[in-house]
Amino acid sequence: MSTLPQRTALQLRTLVRRSGELELSIASVPVPEPAPHEVLLRVEAAPINPSDLGLLFPRADLTTLAFSGTAERPVVTARIPQDAMAALAARVDVSMPAGNEGAGVVVAAGSSGAAQALLGRTVAVLGGAMYSQYRCVAADQALRLPEGATPADGASSFVNPLTVLGMVETMRREGHTALVHTAAASNLGQMLQRICLKDGIGLVNVVRKPAQEELLRAMGAAHVCSTASPNFVHDLTEAIAATGATIAFDATGGGKLAGQILGAMEAALNRSAKEYRRYGSPTHKQVYVYSGLDPSPTEFVRNFGMAWGIGGWLLFPFLQKIGPAAAQALKQRVAAELKTTFATHYLREVSLAEALQADAIAVYAKMATGEKFLVNPNRGVAAAG
Amino acid sequence: MSTLPQRTALQLRTLVRRSGELELSIASVPVPEPAPHEVLLRVEAAPINPSDLGLLFPRADLTTLAFSGTAERPVVTARIPQDAMAALAARVDVSMPAGNEGAGVVVAAGSSGAAQALLGRTVAVLGGAMYSQYRCVAADQALRLPEGATPADGASSFVNPLTVLGMVETMRREGHTALVHTAAASNLGQMLQRICLKDGIGLVNVVRKPAQEELLRAMGAAHVCSTASPNFVHDLTEAIAATGATIAFDATGGGKLAGQILGAMEAALNRSAKEYRRYGSPTHKQVYVYSGLDPSPTEFVRNFGMAWGIGGWLLFPFLQKIGPAAAQALKQRVAAELKTTFATHYLREVSLAEALQADAIAVYAKMATGEKFLVNPNRGVAAAG
Repeated sequence: MSTLPQRTALQLRTLVRRSGELELSIASVPVPEPAPHEVLLRVEAAPINPSDLGLLFPRADLTTLAFSGTAERPVVTARIPQDAMAALAARVDVSMPAGNEGAGVVVAAGSSGAAQALLGRTVAVLGGAMYSQYRCVAADQALRLPEGATPADGASSFVNPLTVLGMVETMRREGHTALVHTAAASNLGQMLQRICLKDGIGLVNVVRKPAQEELLRAMGAAHVCSTASPNFVHDLTEAIAATGATIAFDATGGGKLAGQILGAMEAALNRSAKEYRRYGSPTHKQVYVYSGLDPSPTEFVRNFGMAWGIGGWLLFPFLQKIGPAAAQALKQRVAAELKTTFATHYLREVSLAEALQADAIAVYAKMATGEKFLVNPNRGVAAAG
Repeated sequence: MSTLPQRTALQLRTLVRRSGELELSIASVPVPEPAPHEVLLRVEAAPINPSDLGLLFPRADLTTLAFSGTAERPVVTARIPQDAMAALAARVDVSMPAGNEGAGVVVAAGSSGAAQALLGRTVAVLGGAMYSQYRCVAADQALRLPEGATPADGASSFVNPLTVLGMVETMRREGHTALVHTAAASNLGQMLQRICLKDGIGLVNVVRKPAQEELLRAMGAAHVCSTASPNFVHDLTEAIAATGATIAFDATGGGKLAGQILGAMEAALNRSAKEYRRYGSPTHKQVYVYSGLDPSPTEFVRNFGMAWGIGGWLLFPFLQKIGPAAAQALKQRVAAELKTTFATHYLREVSLAEALQADAIAVYAKMATGEKFLVNPNRGVAAAG
């Protein structure tokens, strides 16, 4: 059994009050003693992903942000609209930690061989509560990073890489051969483009801005369509016809985009139709919504026959569905290509307190391309041990 | 080989011209000689189902209907909006017969034993082109009706009965135990209610009008929710909670209904949630759109977590998916319960010429509850043979 580095440590908390007030703060919590099979991490890098924002700022109105507390212990509040409270009932008045994934150094370990073997090593964890100075997890949950990899290198080892590999795996398992991706210039989108180039898979990237198109083209993307173009639907149809894509992963969720993609797939499929098909193409066309960057209602005109589907897609249910062996194979690939295919770029590294400052929230809450933040809960703290 | 009753006979035709004009007319076509394995039907009853209207009047603007021709050979025209023409490209300038299903008497038969065995019998067929005085089909396509059943009794043996049984079968195969149905007072909806009462399946009926609610209640329906009620979403949620329905079959397709159903399912599922689930209920919620009574865009607010799907559902791909043995079992049940569970009521019987008259189209094109038409292509014609 190792000696704990300190008795208490800082942890970011998010709290929804019954009144409809959201409060983010930094709590002091006991540093847990690792059980025999556990290791204690000093967390040094944890990304702020869109999935983290959903837990941190659940449907809060960010125009109502207010700041109080001290520089070391800032407090942020915001209003949650009344109609959003029903979905949050189960977390009302429960102060919750956050941070899906991250990486750090093992500073204490339980007595088991597996735990002891990780002492002093840099590991990545998908465990929740990673916006904490210290985090205790089972040794078999920790992914040991390759020699020379820093916590920052491994901070995003799970959510985006496994999501990207899960999309490709879903495409294959459901019988499609090429895919469409929206918000395609994101960190996740760039990873998907690298995977598709490496594996020879047709990918149609949908972006909103010319700069995003240039970024993807510079990476070698063959198909990039911009929703800002007056020719968007035409360009999308041509790219889908060229690749044969019949499945899409949509990060936006709202607006008309999902329906436009299905319509373009149908138009591309009908080019080769020899006879009139009253119910449209018999080929199944699928859009999976995996995030909600556009909170507006989803709207579509059903001009794509009857063989279509739109639905939610989430990483964890997908991993459960494919089973532990298939999931492990995906994780091995992530570890092997951590600094190449799955490299993640961050705009800024912040401490827990800095993550709760107005200038930081104003940037990362936009979830804009190229503006991902990395939280280092031990930033500015002398490393113990 | 039997003698043909006549050399030529009448057949309803639908034609989309390149100009965007739709033309319905009655053609004189040769009566085919049955091949050894075939039988020739004198068609005496063929329903006008919503699926037939899609072929007869493909997205035509019914405010532009114009009538010409003679009483025996009427011609109906209408304009098809320009933006609907792309989807109809493959049928432009191709005169098409119509009528998915129907029943009649076998008046000539090929030399095979199976064909000869049907001579003089009343049979039902799902074969297309049933708005014809005579129709030649393979003997194994003909469903022999029970003794004493008339063509009118058996005219709707396939589309609605198999669709209803297909819905229940889909519910079971996809792991659900109760279902929601919209446009629930339709002929199809009444069949579904009878099946659910008989088989002990929870059914939530969604209707638009108080009279439709009364009709279903009188049949013994336990759950009927009217979209006309200010309490619709509340009532729907209560009915879904009471039945545990997590799958819906929606005949309307447009507007907000599909999303309201998913939202009500999620609200019902969350009643038993013990802890906060950031992605909502993990139970998959599904809406299948099987028709398009509401042509307006589909719109929904994604307030139902991430475990959801909306998609098209069609009878024929479903039957193909389950395979011939399972499909045959469904057909046997239809034959056994033809005059009870699967009885269909018609507002009017019309001849081919009467089906093209303004007063008839004005009624059946609305696809209103209780206003189904039956076409008898030999109405007013002395039965031959």
